[in-house]
Amino acid sequence: MSNGKLYAIGTGPGASDLITVRAARLLDTLDVLYAPASRKGGDSLALSIVREYIGKQVLIKERHFPMTNDVEQKQRAWDEVAYEIESDVNLGKQVGFITLGDSMLFSTWVFLLERLNHKVDIDIIPGITSFSCIASRANFPLCMEQQSLAVMSCTAGIEVLRRALEQHEAVVLMKVYGRFDKVRQLLKEQGLLQHAVLMANASMDNEVYYPDLTQVGDGEALPYFSTIIVNRNWTNVIAH
Amino acid sequence: MSNGKLYAIGTGPGASDLITVRAARLLDTLDVLYAPASRKGGDSLALSIVREYIGKQVLIKERHFPMTNDVEQKQRAWDEVAYEIESDVNLGKQVGFITLGDSMLFSTWVFLLERLNHKVDIDIIPGITSFSCIASRANFPLCMEQQSLAVMSCTAGIEVLRRALEQHEAVVLMKVYGRFDKVRQLLKEQGLLQHAVLMANASMDNEVYYPDLTQVGDGEALPYFSTIIVNRNWTNVIAH
Repeated sequence: MSNGKLYAIGTGPGASDLITVRAARLLDTLDVLYAPASRKGGDSLALSIVREYIGKQVLIKERHFPMTNDVEQKQRAWDEVAYEIESDVNLGKQVGFITLGDSMLFSTWVFLLERLNHKVDIDIIPGITSFSCIASRANFPLCMEQQSLAVMSCTAGIEVLRRALEQHEAVVLMKVYGRFDKVRQLLKEQGLLQHAVLMANASMDNEVYYPDLTQVGDGEALPYFSTIIVNRNWTNVIAH
Repeated sequence: MSNGKLYAIGTGPGASDLITVRAARLLDTLDVLYAPASRKGGDSLALSIVREYIGKQVLIKERHFPMTNDVEQKQRAWDEVAYEIESDVNLGKQVGFITLGDSMLFSTWVFLLERLNHKVDIDIIPGITSFSCIASRANFPLCMEQQSLAVMSCTAGIEVLRRALEQHEAVVLMKVYGRFDKVRQLLKEQGLLQHAVLMANASMDNEVYYPDLTQVGDGEALPYFSTIIVNRNWTNVIAH
């Protein structure tokens, strides 16, 4: 191995000052920083969050990760970026890769880790998860003592979500986008509407907060990053 | 309400530079900072993590939160600290309360929130969870795409843990202390030993890491903050 190193850096949920002190200091000292962009030529949200911390010498490489159901196309993109990062590290560079939230939870970074683990020296800097931020913003706790928390993707299907809601005191429902009406119906059936809040873009300028899910109109378009938190031991504003 | 405000501040998992930039800046500007100590007269771990960021003017109030099964004794302690904090905020002070990890997950802070919500102005600063830090330190991811994560306390009982391990791709097993042998047996029965790692005191000087749970001796004393992460789609070093 060269003296090069790869740092995966969680940017946290969106506000620039919700990254860690370690991440902020590191971004000042890197040689190269890779940033994911969901659209070709599109701005990287992760990059906009951390821009103020990036040292002047840092070469920024925005790379496009296609959001598609074409597995081969996605794998080709990850292969290419992994190869490029590996080359930079082998040249002795200090290389960063930024991801939204935490690097190890629902993050593209893991696809790169699969490809680069044991090949280059890796240091992962954790980030604040979106659901920790939502809980904080909404004064709506997750779980306590012997209770448990499930973190679910709404793409998993209603029956899987139903089971999680039955078995855990607190449930985070991610990727609500396009599935809100069905998920709200499920929460209603389970008597959980007064124990749920919805937030999107937590901590950012365009934050959207519904402390009461019944206020969302039928078929209303919600932001892409909408997440619901349920805690059967806590009540939302409906109950106040 | 006065101009006073209460800030709940997650310190993250242990390393001083794994707190957020927002928390670091805030600690410099407070009037009063409450810190929990688990033993009477004992040092507060949370306080030691953030000490370098605390402004010279900050009045530090270490308060003892008894770890006991005596519910009344615990509630009395929470009532007293909540009352004291409320009084400080009503005097117009900027008051902080620090907790390990994230404030909204398995944290004493929630008992204070129950008592102070809607009484004083509250702002909660999220923190890095211990399990995000462990996943990062061990290069061992949590979950991806349609997968799900359960965060469990091992005090919940073996059958509850068994169900979580059957139903979620990734499971965090907290409070392993005193229950390790039973939990490891469960993981063995489920064929998950090669998909699990154990870490304690992640990111701290006294970090303990077992990338292979079979290396822990029978009946071996593990640190109090030991946590196991299981991911059935990832293999630990046994498999390499």
